[in-house]
Amino acid sequence: MEEKEISQAVIRRMPRYYRYLGELIDDGVERISSNDLSKRMNVTASQIRQDLNNFGGFGQQGYGYNVKYLYEEIGKILGLNEKHNIIVIGAGNLGQALANYVKFEKLGFMIIGLFDVNPALDGVTVRGIKIHMLEELEQFCAENQVDIAALTMPKAKADAIANRLVDAGIHAIWNFAHVDLELLDKDVVVENVHLSDSLMQLSYNVARNKKARESGS
Amino acid sequence: MEEKEISQAVIRRMPRYYRYLGELIDDGVERISSNDLSKRMNVTASQIRQDLNNFGGFGQQGYGYNVKYLYEEIGKILGLNEKHNIIVIGAGNLGQALANYVKFEKLGFMIIGLFDVNPALDGVTVRGIKIHMLEELEQFCAENQVDIAALTMPKAKADAIANRLVDAGIHAIWNFAHVDLELLDKDVVVENVHLSDSLMQLSYNVARNKKARESGS
Repeated sequence: MEEKEISQAVIRRMPRYYRYLGELIDDGVERISSNDLSKRMNVTASQIRQDLNNFGGFGQQGYGYNVKYLYEEIGKILGLNEKHNIIVIGAGNLGQALANYVKFEKLGFMIIGLFDVNPALDGVTVRGIKIHMLEELEQFCAENQVDIAALTMPKAKADAIANRLVDAGIHAIWNFAHVDLELLDKDVVVENVHLSDSLMQLSYNVARNKKARESGS
Repeated sequence: MEEKEISQAVIRRMPRYYRYLGELIDDGVERISSNDLSKRMNVTASQIRQDLNNFGGFGQQGYGYNVKYLYEEIGKILGLNEKHNIIVIGAGNLGQALANYVKFEKLGFMIIGLFDVNPALDGVTVRGIKIHMLEELEQFCAENQVDIAALTMPKAKADAIANRLVDAGIHAIWNFAHVDLELLDKDVVVENVHLSDSLMQLSYNVARNKKARESGS
């Protein structure tokens, strides 16, 4: 496949294609036209063709898309053909929720350890995954292949721990702390999940809808 | 303020302004130029001016922005001048994590109840918030003002419960189930938090960075 820079907006839509194609496979569908996929996904057929053309197409005139092939190709694009080991920093409710979420494993994301500063959690396991003390972080990263670290601790500590993780050789951070990380090493991939931001977005739309209902429009 | 349709892309950036302005207030900063705000937030000054102009500006030539005023105005735009009552469907780790997150309350989002089908959780409280059985949902919604429902149950049950919530008068759903909800009533606001999608986006960027490092570019 040719190498070119693909916009993050396109990449952001890929997991949704992957999800729908997975459902089609579960339903026993072997091929689908961009029109049918478009109806299912509630996006235009031209959007679908344009998105998939970024990766070289996959569709055949008059046949449509081979569902399994497209599913696997998008999986490769998303890096899902390799396993990823994840550690979770912060073993509170959110950290434990991530560890309990078996869906991630099906996608190849294996949570291999949790870390916390609370001595009461030392050695406790969540679905067989051990909680370590934060001071063991560097040693754990030296002894295990760690690809991604999820940060679920309070924002005040997030920068310091993120930079410790980078020093320990981790170059991908899944950040749940409500702050934009300030990383000393710029060659690090960060994906933010800012729950408060998402809630505010919802709140804006609630207010807008309410106004529209009240004005009868 | 004039009413006009503002793009979701602009709205999506507003919580981040709100967060940075809140931090400026905490730091005792009373006013800031779009240039200084731009450096802090790592976006262009022209983007900032353009974004805020959607809501009528707020800046004054030669003075910059009044931090507290701008913070409050953006808060109003986001609907944060009103309190929002939330119920959480699913009292597993994720549901309990949401209930334990005090930050939401500071923003005016009050979690007033959790719901689950597991009888072992009936009447248990999380930070003082009671877990109810799902069969009590309709009665609870009739007796309490519920503005938003957060869905944290498995995706197989999400559509049915979402439609039950809408029938019970709730018009805003914060959806953590890994599915695009199919709602019979279209006048419902849905905000999705698809954790697997976010993880795949991260995984794509990990693979891309790795390739770039290996090719030495």
